[in-house]
Amino acid sequence: MRKVVYGGAVSLDMYLAREDGGVEWLIFDSEAMELMKGMWDRFDVMVMGRKTWEVSMGQFSAEDLKKAEDAKGGMPSYVFSRTMEPGARGAYQIVNDDPVEFVQELKLKPGKDVMVMGGGEIGSLLLDAGLVDEVGFNIHPVLLGSGVPAFIKMARQTGLELIESKVMKNGCVYLHYRVV
Amino acid sequence: MRKVVYGGAVSLDMYLAREDGGVEWLIFDSEAMELMKGMWDRFDVMVMGRKTWEVSMGQFSAEDLKKAEDAKGGMPSYVFSRTMEPGARGAYQIVNDDPVEFVQELKLKPGKDVMVMGGGEIGSLLLDAGLVDEVGFNIHPVLLGSGVPAFIKMARQTGLELIESKVMKNGCVYLHYRVV
Repeated sequence: MRKVVYGGAVSLDMYLAREDGGVEWLIFDSEAMELMKGMWDRFDVMVMGRKTWEVSMGQFSAEDLKKAEDAKGGMPSYVFSRTMEPGARGAYQIVNDDPVEFVQELKLKPGKDVMVMGGGEIGSLLLDAGLVDEVGFNIHPVLLGSGVPAFIKMARQTGLELIESKVMKNGCVYLHYRVV
Repeated sequence: MRKVVYGGAVSLDMYLAREDGGVEWLIFDSEAMELMKGMWDRFDVMVMGRKTWEVSMGQFSAEDLKKAEDAKGGMPSYVFSRTMEPGARGAYQIVNDDPVEFVQELKLKPGKDVMVMGGGEIGSLLLDAGLVDEVGFNIHPVLLGSGVPAFIKMARQTGLELIESKVMKNGCVYLHYRVV
Protein backbone atom coordinates (compact mmCIF):
# COMPACT_ATOMS: atom_id res chain seq x y z
CA MET A 1 0.00 0.00 0.00
CA ARG A 2 1.28 3.52 -0.73
CA LYS A 3 2.63 5.35 2.29
CA VAL A 4 1.45 8.65 3.74
CA VAL A 5 4.23 10.98 4.87
CA TYR A 6 3.68 14.12 6.94
CA GLY A 7 6.54 16.54 7.01
CA GLY A 8 8.03 19.90 6.37
CA ALA A 9 10.53 22.45 7.52
CA VAL A 10 10.16 23.62 11.12
CA SER A 11 11.80 25.78 13.75
CA LEU A 12 13.10 24.03 16.89
CA ASP A 13 9.89 25.14 18.64
CA MET A 14 7.99 23.29 15.88
CA TYR A 15 6.44 26.08 13.88
CA LEU A 16 5.98 25.70 10.11
CA ALA A 17 5.72 29.45 9.56
CA ARG A 18 5.39 32.73 11.43
CA GLU A 19 1.92 33.80 12.53
CA ASP A 20 1.62 35.95 9.39
CA GLY A 21 2.72 32.96 7.29
CA GLY A 22 6.28 34.29 6.95
CA VAL A 23 8.86 31.70 5.91
CA GLU A 24 11.81 33.93 5.10
CA TRP A 25 13.74 32.11 7.87
CA LEU A 26 13.81 28.93 5.75
CA ILE A 27 17.23 28.01 4.42
CA PHE A 28 17.21 27.25 0.70
CA ASP A 29 20.85 26.42 0.04
CA SER A 30 22.31 23.61 -2.05
CA GLU A 31 22.08 21.09 0.82
CA ALA A 32 18.42 21.89 1.39
CA MET A 33 17.72 21.63 -2.36
CA GLU A 34 19.51 18.27 -2.52
CA LEU A 35 17.42 16.98 0.40
CA MET A 36 14.13 18.10 -1.16
CA LYS A 37 15.02 16.82 -4.62
CA GLY A 38 15.74 13.37 -3.20
CA MET A 39 12.45 13.39 -1.32
CA TRP A 40 10.04 14.28 -4.10
CA ASP A 41 10.87 11.24 -6.26
CA ARG A 42 8.82 8.93 -4.06
CA PHE A 43 5.58 10.94 -4.22
CA ASP A 44 2.95 11.30 -6.93
CA VAL A 45 0.26 13.13 -4.96
CA MET A 46 0.24 15.93 -2.43
CA VAL A 47 -2.44 17.06 0.04
CA MET A 48 -2.62 20.14 2.25
CA GLY A 49 -5.00 22.24 4.27
CA ARG A 50 -6.51 25.42 2.90
CA LYS A 51 -4.55 27.68 5.26
CA THR A 52 -1.22 26.13 4.26
CA TRP A 53 -2.16 26.52 0.61
CA GLU A 54 -3.08 30.19 1.05
CA VAL A 55 0.13 30.86 2.94
CA SER A 56 2.17 29.12 0.20
CA MET A 57 0.46 31.17 -2.48
CA GLY A 58 1.05 34.40 -0.59
CA GLN A 59 4.65 33.81 0.43
CA PHE A 60 6.41 32.82 -2.73
CA SER A 61 7.04 34.83 -5.86
CA ALA A 62 5.42 33.77 -9.15
CA GLU A 63 8.88 32.65 -10.27
CA ASP A 64 9.47 30.49 -7.16
CA LEU A 65 5.98 29.02 -7.48
CA LYS A 66 6.72 28.14 -11.11
CA LYS A 67 9.97 26.45 -9.99
CA ALA A 68 8.08 24.53 -7.29
CA GLU A 69 5.47 23.43 -9.85
CA ASP A 70 8.20 22.29 -12.22
CA ALA A 71 9.90 20.35 -9.38
CA LYS A 72 6.77 18.39 -8.58
CA GLY A 73 6.17 17.89 -12.31
CA GLY A 74 2.40 18.14 -12.60
CA MET A 75 1.78 16.02 -9.52
CA PRO A 76 -1.89 16.17 -8.47
CA SER A 77 -2.24 18.44 -5.43
CA TYR A 78 -5.38 18.55 -3.33
CA VAL A 79 -6.36 21.36 -0.97
CA PHE A 80 -8.92 20.60 1.76
CA SER A 81 -11.43 23.34 2.41
CA ARG A 82 -14.83 23.35 4.06
CA THR A 83 -15.83 26.68 2.56
CA MET A 84 -14.25 27.14 -0.88
CA GLU A 85 -15.99 26.10 -4.08
CA PRO A 86 -14.45 22.78 -5.17
CA GLY A 87 -12.57 22.66 -8.49
CA ALA A 88 -9.26 23.53 -10.09
CA ARG A 89 -7.27 26.61 -9.00
CA GLY A 90 -4.18 26.65 -11.19
CA ALA A 91 -2.25 23.47 -10.45
CA TYR A 92 -4.36 22.71 -7.35
CA GLN A 93 -7.68 20.95 -6.84
CA ILE A 94 -9.85 22.34 -4.07
CA VAL A 95 -11.87 19.56 -2.42
CA ASN A 96 -14.56 19.74 0.25
CA ASP A 97 -14.03 16.09 1.25
CA ASP A 98 -13.23 14.98 4.76
CA PRO A 99 -9.40 14.73 4.87
CA VAL A 100 -9.46 11.41 6.77
CA GLU A 101 -11.81 9.70 4.28
CA PHE A 102 -10.01 11.26 1.31
CA VAL A 103 -6.57 10.05 2.45
CA GLN A 104 -7.98 6.63 3.39
CA GLU A 105 -9.20 6.27 -0.22
CA LEU A 106 -5.93 7.60 -1.67
CA LYS A 107 -4.00 4.96 0.27
CA LEU A 108 -6.06 2.19 -1.29
CA LYS A 109 -5.43 3.40 -4.85
CA PRO A 110 -2.32 2.23 -6.69
CA GLY A 111 0.50 4.74 -6.99
CA LYS A 112 3.54 6.25 -5.37
CA ASP A 113 3.48 7.73 -1.86
CA VAL A 114 1.30 10.57 -0.57
CA MET A 115 2.89 13.78 0.76
CA VAL A 116 1.00 15.68 3.47
CA MET A 117 2.31 19.25 3.37
CA GLY A 118 0.43 20.24 6.52
CA GLY A 119 -0.38 22.30 8.27
CA GLY A 120 -0.56 21.07 11.82
CA GLU A 121 -4.32 20.64 11.76
CA ILE A 122 -4.36 18.21 8.82
CA GLY A 123 -1.15 16.49 9.97
CA SER A 124 -2.43 15.95 13.50
CA LEU A 125 -5.88 14.85 12.27
CA LEU A 126 -4.30 12.21 10.01
CA LEU A 127 -1.91 11.07 12.77
CA ASP A 128 -4.81 10.67 15.18
CA ALA A 129 -6.66 8.66 12.53
CA GLY A 130 -3.65 6.32 12.24
CA LEU A 131 -3.20 7.15 8.54
CA VAL A 132 0.37 8.52 8.66
CA ASP A 133 3.17 6.02 7.99
CA GLU A 134 6.15 8.34 8.28
CA VAL A 135 7.01 11.81 9.56
CA GLY A 136 10.00 13.82 8.40
CA PHE A 137 10.98 17.26 9.64
CA ASN A 138 13.87 19.49 8.73
CA ILE A 139 14.55 21.32 12.00
CA HIS A 140 15.98 24.79 11.36
CA PRO A 141 18.33 26.44 13.86
CA VAL A 142 15.88 29.04 15.16
CA LEU A 143 13.20 29.50 17.82
CA LEU A 144 10.43 31.50 16.14
CA GLY A 145 8.62 32.04 19.43
CA SER A 146 5.18 31.90 17.82
CA GLY A 147 3.64 30.84 14.54
CA VAL A 148 1.76 28.10 12.70
CA PRO A 149 2.34 24.91 14.73
CA ALA A 150 3.43 21.67 13.03
CA PHE A 151 1.38 19.74 15.59
CA ILE A 152 -1.80 20.63 17.37
CA LYS A 153 -3.10 18.73 20.39
CA MET A 154 -3.70 15.10 19.48
CA ALA A 155 -5.99 12.60 21.17
CA ARG A 156 -3.37 9.89 21.34
CA GLN A 157 0.32 9.11 21.46
CA THR A 158 2.16 8.01 18.31
CA GLY A 159 5.28 5.88 18.68
CA LEU A 160 8.10 6.57 16.24
CA GLU A 161 11.22 4.80 15.03
CA LEU A 162 14.08 6.91 13.71
CA ILE A 163 14.98 5.67 10.23
CA GLU A 164 17.20 8.49 8.98
CA SER A 165 18.88 11.61 10.29
CA LYS A 166 20.95 14.14 8.44
CA VAL A 167 22.91 16.98 10.03
CA MET A 168 23.59 19.72 7.50
CA LYS A 169 26.38 22.27 7.39
CA ASN A 170 23.77 25.03 7.54
CA GLY A 171 22.72 23.85 11.02
CA CYS A 172 19.52 22.15 9.89
CA VAL A 173 18.84 18.64 11.15
CA TYR A 174 16.53 16.42 9.13
CA LEU A 175 14.81 13.72 11.19
CA HIS A 176 12.83 11.01 9.45
CA TYR A 177 10.75 8.51 11.42
CA ARG A 178 8.55 5.52 10.76
CA VAL A 179 5.28 5.43 12.70
CA VAL A 180 5.21 2.25 14.81
CA MET B 1 30.67 34.89 32.55
CA ARG B 2 28.96 31.62 33.44
CA LYS B 3 26.55 30.34 30.81
CA VAL B 4 22.84 29.60 31.20
CA VAL B 5 21.64 26.44 29.48
CA TYR B 6 17.98 25.54 28.98
CA GLY B 7 17.32 21.95 28.08
CA GLY B 8 15.74 18.63 28.75
CA ALA B 9 14.27 15.54 27.23
CA VAL B 10 11.35 16.12 24.85
CA SER B 11 9.03 14.32 22.49
CA LEU B 12 9.20 15.29 18.78
CA ASP B 13 6.14 17.50 19.39
CA MET B 14 8.19 19.26 22.08
CA TYR B 15 6.55 18.17 25.30
CA LEU B 16 8.63 17.69 28.45
CA ALA B 17 6.02 15.46 30.09
CA ARG B 18 2.46 14.25 29.68
CA GLU B 19 -0.34 16.49 30.92
CA ASP B 20 -0.40 14.54 34.19
CA GLY B 21 3.38 14.93 34.46
CA GLY B 22 4.04 11.38 33.25
CA VAL B 23 7.55 10.75 31.97
CA GLU B 24 7.53 6.96 31.69
CA TRP B 25 8.22 7.39 27.93
CA LEU B 26 11.73 8.68 28.72
CA ILE B 27 14.51 6.33 27.71
CA PHE B 28 17.04 5.76 30.50
CA ASP B 29 19.50 3.39 28.87
CA SER B 30 23.29 3.42 28.98
CA GLU B 31 23.56 5.91 26.09
CA ALA B 32 21.17 8.32 27.81
CA MET B 33 23.05 7.95 31.10
CA GLU B 34 26.37 8.62 29.36
CA LEU B 35 24.93 11.76 27.73
CA MET B 36 23.58 13.08 31.05
CA LYS B 37 26.71 12.24 33.00
CA GLY B 38 28.83 14.20 30.52
CA MET B 39 26.47 17.16 30.76
CA TRP B 40 26.29 17.61 34.52
CA ASP B 41 30.02 18.25 34.94
CA ARG B 42 29.77 21.79 33.62
CA PHE B 43 27.04 22.93 36.04
CA ASP B 44 27.11 23.90 39.69
CA VAL B 45 23.63 25.34 40.06
CA MET B 46 20.18 24.37 38.83
CA VAL B 47 16.94 26.37 38.59
CA MET B 48 13.42 25.26 37.76
CA GLY B 49 9.80 26.29 37.97
CA ARG B 50 7.55 25.12 40.77
CA LYS B 51 5.42 22.95 38.46
CA THR B 52 8.46 21.14 37.06
CA TRP B 53 9.70 20.56 40.61
CA GLU B 54 6.36 19.16 41.77
CA VAL B 55 6.20 16.90 38.72
CA SER B 56 9.76 15.65 39.36
CA MET B 57 8.95 14.92 42.98
CA GLY B 58 5.78 13.07 42.04
CA GLN B 59 7.16 11.03 39.15
CA PHE B 60 10.28 9.43 40.45
CA SER B 61 10.70 6.85 43.19
CA ALA B 62 12.55 7.78 46.38
CA GLU B 63 15.39 5.58 45.13
CA ASP B 64 15.61 7.34 41.73
CA LEU B 65 15.46 10.73 43.43
CA LYS B 66 18.32 9.67 45.71
CA LYS B 67 20.32 8.60 42.63
CA ALA B 68 19.56 11.93 40.92
CA GLU B 69 20.65 13.81 44.05
CA ASP B 70 23.88 11.82 44.19
CA ALA B 71 24.53 12.54 40.48
CA LYS B 72 24.25 16.27 40.96
CA GLY B 73 26.36 15.98 44.12
CA GLY B 74 24.79 18.54 46.43
CA MET B 75 24.49 21.18 43.72
CA PRO B 76 22.33 24.10 44.87
CA SER B 77 18.90 23.85 43.25
CA TYR B 78 16.42 26.71 43.25
CA VAL B 79 12.69 26.40 42.66
CA PHE B 80 10.76 29.52 41.61
CA SER B 81 7.35 29.90 43.17
CA ARG B 82 5.08 32.88 43.64
CA THR B 83 2.98 31.18 46.31
CA MET B 84 5.10 28.76 48.35
CA GLU B 85 6.86 29.78 51.55
CA PRO B 86 10.53 30.34 50.70
CA GLY B 87 13.14 28.10 52.32
CA ALA B 88 14.68 24.65 52.09
CA ARG B 89 12.65 21.59 51.03
CA GLY B 90 15.05 18.67 51.17
CA ALA B 91 17.82 19.38 48.66
CA TYR B 92 15.86 22.29 47.09
CA GLN B 93 15.55 25.96 47.95
CA ILE B 94 12.15 27.52 47.26
CA VAL B 95 12.55 31.17 46.25
CA ASN B 96 9.90 33.82 45.56
CA ASP B 97 12.31 35.90 43.47
CA ASP B 98 11.60 36.97 39.92
CA PRO B 99 13.28 34.30 37.72
CA VAL B 100 14.73 36.90 35.32
CA GLU B 101 16.36 38.98 38.09
CA PHE B 102 17.50 35.87 39.95
CA VAL B 103 19.20 34.37 36.88
CA GLN B 104 20.69 37.75 35.92
CA GLU B 105 22.35 37.88 39.36
CA LEU B 106 23.46 34.23 39.15
CA LYS B 107 25.20 34.94 35.83
CA LEU B 108 27.24 37.71 37.42
CA LYS B 109 28.48 35.51 40.27
CA PRO B 110 31.59 33.39 39.76
CA GLY B 111 31.03 29.68 39.22
CA LYS B 112 30.28 26.96 36.72
CA ASP B 113 27.31 27.11 34.37
CA VAL B 114 23.63 27.35 35.27
CA MET B 115 21.18 24.60 34.27
CA VAL B 116 17.56 25.61 33.62
CA MET B 117 15.48 22.43 34.00
CA GLY B 118 12.30 24.08 32.76
CA GLY B 119 9.51 23.97 32.35
CA GLY B 120 8.51 25.83 29.25
CA GLU B 121 7.32 28.87 31.17
CA ILE B 122 10.67 29.56 32.86
CA GLY B 123 12.65 28.54 29.78
CA SER B 124 10.68 30.82 27.46
CA LEU B 125 10.74 33.69 29.97
CA LEU B 126 14.54 33.49 30.20
CA LEU B 127 14.91 33.17 26.40
CA ASP B 128 12.75 36.25 25.89
CA ALA B 129 14.89 38.11 28.44
CA GLY B 130 18.00 37.20 26.45
CA LEU B 131 19.52 35.32 29.39
CA VAL B 132 19.89 31.89 27.79
CA ASP B 133 23.25 31.11 26.15
CA GLU B 134 22.58 27.56 24.99
CA VAL B 135 19.67 25.19 24.48
CA GLY B 136 20.01 21.43 24.40
CA PHE B 137 17.19 18.95 23.84
CA ASN B 138 17.21 15.19 23.66
CA ILE B 139 14.39 14.48 21.18
CA HIS B 140 12.74 11.16 21.92
CA PRO B 141 11.13 9.09 19.13
CA VAL B 142 7.52 9.71 20.11
CA LEU B 143 4.68 12.17 19.52
CA LEU B 144 2.96 12.55 22.89
CA GLY B 145 0.07 14.50 21.36
CA SER B 146 -0.38 16.69 24.43
CA GLY B 147 1.50 17.57 27.58
CA VAL B 148 3.75 20.10 29.27
CA PRO B 149 5.29 22.18 26.46
CA ALA B 150 9.05 22.85 26.34
CA PHE B 151 8.29 26.26 24.82
CA ILE B 152 5.40 28.58 25.32
CA LYS B 153 4.69 31.55 23.07
CA MET B 154 7.62 33.94 23.11
CA ALA B 155 7.66 37.63 22.26
CA ARG B 156 10.65 37.39 19.99
CA GLN B 157 12.67 35.12 17.73
CA THR B 158 15.92 33.54 18.96
CA GLY B 159 18.57 32.61 16.43
CA LEU B 160 20.50 29.42 17.08
CA GLU B 161 23.72 27.84 15.92
CA LEU B 162 24.01 24.06 16.05
CA ILE B 163 27.13 23.17 18.01
CA GLU B 164 26.60 19.46 18.62
CA SER B 165 24.28 16.69 17.57
CA LYS B 166 24.21 13.09 18.65
CA VAL B 167 22.07 10.36 17.14
CA MET B 168 21.64 7.49 19.57
CA LYS B 169 20.96 3.82 18.90
CA ASN B 170 17.76 4.14 20.94
CA GLY B 171 16.36 6.59 18.37
CA CYS B 172 16.91 9.69 20.48
CA VAL B 173 18.59 12.69 18.85
CA TYR B 174 20.36 15.18 21.09
CA LEU B 175 20.58 18.67 19.57
CA HIS B 176 22.70 21.32 21.27
CA TYR B 177 22.68 24.94 20.09
CA ARG B 178 24.36 28.19 20.96
CA VAL B 179 22.05 31.22 21.09
CA VAL B 180 23.28 33.79 18.56
